[in-house]
Amino acid sequence: MWNKNEITRLLKINYPIIQAGMAGGPTTPELIAAVSNAGGLGTLGAGYMTPEQMRQSIEKIRELTNKPFGVNVFIPEKPEVDDEKIKQSNQLLKPIRKKLKLSDPPVISRTSTDLFLEQIKVILDYNVPVCTFTFGLPEREIIEQLKNHHITIIGTATTVKEAIIIEEEGMDIVVVQGSEAGGHRGSFATSFENSMIGTISLIPQVADHVHIPIIAAGGIMDSRGILAAMVLGAKAVQMGTAFLTCDESGANNLHKERILNSTEDETTITSAFSGKPARGIRNEFITLMKGNEHLLPDYPIQNQLTQDIRSEASKQLDSEWMSMWSGQSPRLSKKTSAHDLIKSIVWEIENFSFAELVQNN
Amino acid sequence: MWNKNEITRLLKINYPIIQAGMAGGPTTPELIAAVSNAGGLGTLGAGYMTPEQMRQSIEKIRELTNKPFGVNVFIPEKPEVDDEKIKQSNQLLKPIRKKLKLSDPPVISRTSTDLFLEQIKVILDYNVPVCTFTFGLPEREIIEQLKNHHITIIGTATTVKEAIIIEEEGMDIVVVQGSEAGGHRGSFATSFENSMIGTISLIPQVADHVHIPIIAAGGIMDSRGILAAMVLGAKAVQMGTAFLTCDESGANNLHKERILNSTEDETTITSAFSGKPARGIRNEFITLMKGNEHLLPDYPIQNQLTQDIRSEASKQLDSEWMSMWSGQSPRLSKKTSAHDLIKSIVWEIENFSFAELVQNN
Repeated sequence: MWNKNEITRLLKINYPIIQAGMAGGPTTPELIAAVSNAGGLGTLGAGYMTPEQMRQSIEKIRELTNKPFGVNVFIPEKPEVDDEKIKQSNQLLKPIRKKLKLSDPPVISRTSTDLFLEQIKVILDYNVPVCTFTFGLPEREIIEQLKNHHITIIGTATTVKEAIIIEEEGMDIVVVQGSEAGGHRGSFATSFENSMIGTISLIPQVADHVHIPIIAAGGIMDSRGILAAMVLGAKAVQMGTAFLTCDESGANNLHKERILNSTEDETTITSAFSGKPARGIRNEFITLMKGNEHLLPDYPIQNQLTQDIRSEASKQLDSEWMSMWSGQSPRLSKKTSAHDLIKSIVWEIENFSFAELVQNN
Repeated sequence: MWNKNEITRLLKINYPIIQAGMAGGPTTPELIAAVSNAGGLGTLGAGYMTPEQMRQSIEKIRELTNKPFGVNVFIPEKPEVDDEKIKQSNQLLKPIRKKLKLSDPPVISRTSTDLFLEQIKVILDYNVPVCTFTFGLPEREIIEQLKNHHITIIGTATTVKEAIIIEEEGMDIVVVQGSEAGGHRGSFATSFENSMIGTISLIPQVADHVHIPIIAAGGIMDSRGILAAMVLGAKAVQMGTAFLTCDESGANNLHKERILNSTEDETTITSAFSGKPARGIRNEFITLMKGNEHLLPDYPIQNQLTQDIRSEASKQLDSEWMSMWSGQSPRLSKKTSAHDLIKSIVWEIENFSFAELVQNN
């Protein structure tokens, strides 16, 4: 057992290791329970889930573990529905749809905040221990409601400014996401370009400006990354890619294989899949759309437009048209169980000799 | 005194802290001597220096310290001289020249490898203890010559592949430069985009693939960054921006002030100053040239074309047209002496409690 710190105490976990709430399939109840049972915090990636899917997942998680876990949801956006951009996007996607033998492009459903409010209701109804937000800030009223239910609230920041805002809004913990991170950038008050700060730079600069504890995210896959994040000023880490390749993860096997066989220079940032910048392994889709991102509609409209392409490509096992999110450390990925991953990390950290490394007092 | 590791032993220094060989003025003999006298390794940024300037600097350094120091030189490039691009660049630079009351654009001197060979000759003549290379690989013959003089040879890599090449070429140590680093990217076998790997991702991935010891560079400014780099697998760190703002640095005061007052989201990468991607604080020059980089000639031709603009802007104290290189951690910069910077870092590391931070065996 390790010494408790602000985060392990707040989250009631043994080890400061949080499995990222990756949306779109990787976070099965089995993965979440395995992480929580091993002493970390599993997180359901509920960003795109219906309330019914959330309820089923949460009930399954509770069957598999009595330990705390989290649920991640996305702050809703109200994009301008630009018909010209939708037309442009469908034009660009046409040859891909043809290749995959897909018929008509999907009809865009007008976005609303209803889904988000229903997701929050599920979290409250089930008294989920931890609620994590990405893409911004919930209404203060929601923060109050969650607090009244003693639910720990975690926000996501990509700059010092964003971390300060999250603290001011009354959230308990901030995930600080460096430029190495896989999947979507969590930026909400900083432009994409200005938000691309490396973890080793970002964590100490945030630590000097907020009082709430920090969870470091971005490029962290093993005991070395965890120790580094903690000496930089974080109290815990969030790992996505490291858990995505685990046996219990629901990610497509092809996606797992591509990460396991990639090098650090094979990922890139694209907004072509969803309308929002996200890091993944370079493939034909990304290459084809490169330079055309400004023609595409905003998130989540573009996400709806590519939905059928991504899921059909997964079915056809054609990795060139799938979104294969990954951080910048794929060489550190392992084919293992989440339980073994956490246990080996804990063993390495407990056997790490800091005194030998540097100093001789 | 700390335990020795491969790097402090090879470089005969007390602390694994290397001052980057920043070209263009910051690395005065006073800065270099202060760093070396405090137990680190000062480095002369001789990239743009004539042999005579190098000789004078080295003699002055030797007056100020009897400790080891390094000299950094640039591997010469043989760019295609594209007259069309030179014309385009001068056209874009014209309004800036007018603003600064500069007359005709400079005449481009055809580049050659003569300067580089003369620089190497100075390093051999003076038996400089450490020779650092940026932008690629010297001829094997030069590596042999340096080895015969017992000069320690350091290469610069931005990806695992580049680090492996540096090891295969027989260099002793590799500087591994993360995307956070200020100034020029040292990439030579990887495209700019593929080379932008954050330090926390890059160091462990390189450490798993090379046997020569690693110096981590990029975003490291204080004891937290140094400890992080070392737990990630580096044996030492190289710091540029942290030393650039020191009293002994020869950087323009305006440049120092801008770093001291910047936030982590104010730097960007531009190739408009030199023809090669480099990180600096965003200003009017960068904004004006943005999107036009593809019209400009390659390094070092563009560097020659903007030379008069950068130096005249410095004289006129107009920071909007200067190149103000900086890494991504400007909030960690300090107005102090290099001696005090190193001493406070060493004190913090010696008083750092690792056991309290994480574990309880």
